[in-house]
Amino acid sequence: MKVSVFRKEHFNAAHRLHNDELSESENARLFGKCNYPNYHGHNYELIVQVSGETDAKTGYVMDMKVLSDLIKQEVIEAYDHRNLNLDVEDFKQIIPTAENIAVAIYNRLRPHIDHTKDLKIRLYETERNFVEFPAG
Amino acid sequence: MKVSVFRKEHFNAAHRLHNDELSESENARLFGKCNYPNYHGHNYELIVQVSGETDAKTGYVMDMKVLSDLIKQEVIEAYDHRNLNLDVEDFKQIIPTAENIAVAIYNRLRPHIDHTKDLKIRLYETERNFVEFPAG
Amino acid sequence: MKVSVFRKEHFNAAHRLHNDELSESENARLFGKCNYPNYHGHNYELIVQVSGETDAKTGYVMDMKVLSDLIKQEVIEAYDHRNLNLDVEDFKQIIPTAENIAVAIYNRLRPHIDHTKDLKIRLYETERNFVEFPAG
Amino acid sequence: MKVSVFRKEHFNAAHRLHNDELSESENARLFGKCNYPNYHGHNYELIVQVSGETDAKTGYVMDMKVLSDLIKQEVIEAYDHRNLNLDVEDFKQIIPTAENIAVAIYNRLRPHIDHTKDLKIRLYETERNFVEFPAG
Amino acid sequence: MKVSVFRKEHFNAAHRLHNDELSESENARLFGKCNYPNYHGHNYELIVQVSGETDAKTGYVMDMKVLSDLIKQEVIEAYDHRNLNLDVEDFKQIIPTAENIAVAIYNRLRPHIDHTKDLKIRLYETERNFVEFPAG
Amino acid sequence: MKVSVFRKEHFNAAHRLHNDELSESENARLFGKCNYPNYHGHNYELIVQVSGETDAKTGYVMDMKVLSDLIKQEVIEAYDHRNLNLDVEDFKQIIPTAENIAVAIYNRLRPHIDHTKDLKIRLYETERNFVEFPAG
Repeated sequence: MKVSVFRKEHFNAAHRLHNDELSESENARLFGKCNYPNYHGHNYELIVQVSGETDAKTGYVMDMKVLSDLIKQEVIEAYDHRNLNLDVEDFKQIIPTAENIAVAIYNRLRPHIDHTKDLKIRLYETERNFVEFPAG
Repeated sequence: MKVSVFRKEHFNAAHRLHNDELSESENARLFGKCNYPNYHGHNYELIVQVSGETDAKTGYVMDMKVLSDLIKQEVIEAYDHRNLNLDVEDFKQIIPTAENIAVAIYNRLRPHIDHTKDLKIRLYETERNFVEFPAG
Repeated sequence: MKVSVFRKEHFNAAHRLHNDELSESENARLFGKCNYPNYHGHNYELIVQVSGETDAKTGYVMDMKVLSDLIKQEVIEAYDHRNLNLDVEDFKQIIPTAENIAVAIYNRLRPHIDHTKDLKIRLYETERNFVEFPAG
Repeated sequence: MKVSVFRKEHFNAAHRLHNDELSESENARLFGKCNYPNYHGHNYELIVQVSGETDAKTGYVMDMKVLSDLIKQEVIEAYDHRNLNLDVEDFKQIIPTAENIAVAIYNRLRPHIDHTKDLKIRLYETERNFVEFPAG
Repeated sequence: MKVSVFRKEHFNAAHRLHNDELSESENARLFGKCNYPNYHGHNYELIVQVSGETDAKTGYVMDMKVLSDLIKQEVIEAYDHRNLNLDVEDFKQIIPTAENIAVAIYNRLRPHIDHTKDLKIRLYETERNFVEFPAG
Repeated sequence: MKVSVFRKEHFNAAHRLHNDELSESENARLFGKCNYPNYHGHNYELIVQVSGETDAKTGYVMDMKVLSDLIKQEVIEAYDHRNLNLDVEDFKQIIPTAENIAVAIYNRLRPHIDHTKDLKIRLYETERNFVEFPAG
């Protein structure tokens, strides 16, 4: 039977929400304070869930130290203390909403997780606003 | 693919658990301290989850500011700083257990959420007691 | 040298803020939603701090199990699942604001704590509103 | 329609990760600091989820006081302040990883929960490492 | 006797640490990742403590609703969703470290708090890094 | 004027409370479940507070990255994933109560903190039991 393991990591980043194809007033209307021109930022809390069979030799679905190192290498290294709009390739064409950041993190991690295992991302932008991908 | 967004709000309310169709002793046996006659209360923490496709223009499943305003208008306005048994129509015929409050909140919000999107309610009565509707 | 030990307990209670010597409109103006007639309630989180010398035999300032039992007997037993205005003698003449509840808890515990030790009360009415007595 | 209720409990225990069928060096390589010979320990936070229909008479899926007492009797009594490797029968043949502890708790509780109801276990080993069984 | 009341608010902002009077390499050495040129950001959690005598008429040291409104008007309005370096006058000449932000918040609030009352600021930059002013 | 900075770190360790100079029955009476022979354990959360003048060049009381590294080197390295009674010299003659662990941590860090600055240790043994040294 399958067990899920979860590992929590965090990063601090600046961003703003802006759609280059829309007018300034439309951007202001859609995104409010999140559209302010000089960026704001968050302490993002990231929870990565991996689900699968437990290995008989180790009692692990996946070694959480290995999972932690993987998240640090593939996600934290690229996002932490960065401006998501200006510094991160993932968001050159895509607005860095919490929803889109979660999908981008999924795409960064999926190739590195055993294909027999399921992957889910939960991302807290603030304590009160968070997202999950895939939905569940 | 679908993403879930979650918005957390809170309200403070008084309630007591009492089934008018049962005797006082049966109520005391079933509900213990929660049946005390003069009410007690809680800081209810409410998490509303909406799941669906991300909008290409905004990068949002649903604008969390809009979701927050909706929860405040439809739920917090009616429940906050109120006595659920005496002041809130939803619980005139229904015992305000955490389970029933979660279902009532679902019913208040469902008509206002796009029908292509799924809705789920999580309600914390205390840090140690909480419920989710629909189950899953 | 002195060490402080802290023990956290909780209780759920209903209350309302109302000064019997003032008019209804003055009460409404002063206390807003906290003055609603049918009570509301909170999950009160209580932290009791005792400071003094560490005992050489036990390595304890005060056994936290003993402190926990004392808080349960002197405070939780009287306040939990109660209506502070209607059920608790402490608030017959005193408005149950967080400030006044903290002082009342101090007065309940002080006689039972060794007089060589200092006592301080922190009380969370919500995660965002809390008080400490004595100030410091 | 079905509602889930969740009850949170905790226990403090010592453990180490070690597979008796492997060499010392293989154990050290697989489990790192978790393999240190003299044990380390955790504040385990346990969340038990029970899902089913709400009872019309009580408004409960399951009385959370009853659920709490059941968890204390079947799990906390056996694990709290114990060395999981040395003191608990469940882990004589099984490595006490978070995954395996969650499955063992599930097996302890399942016979005592109404068979029409679903059961899920979430176990926090630390704030950053946690597991869920069954996966979901 | 004196009681302290605490009110918690939050704001999200971008910043970077940079001393204009030092070379780029000295800035990089001193501030590390916090010196990255395009800013990063935080969910700042702010706790404002006001200490003084309890008012006999209200049972309040200070109405926490009034305190909350004051913090929003004097601090949150100016800092929330802003770039502290570029958008906020307070940090034109002063590096926006947590220490300096806490002092700036104190200076914004002090004129609006009754002079018989003491004021203290606690500011969380992350869950793991926080400051208090005045020290205590 | 002085500002306090706080840095939070954690370690996981096993311990038991036992005074070698007392009988087994006296130990059992004094320490209860904490005296069980095969050890139990905790996720210790450690908050180190350093208070002093802010440096004009950096805006820091003390670089929290430096403070974090110092705590890791002097405390976490020695205590994490260890059995405090068996593996750590500090507790060969001293019972590892939370009070005594906090004093031991203070003694480890004090020589490495600038003597013009004040040092305070807060240690959480569980969410509900914690200590502070020096008392305040």
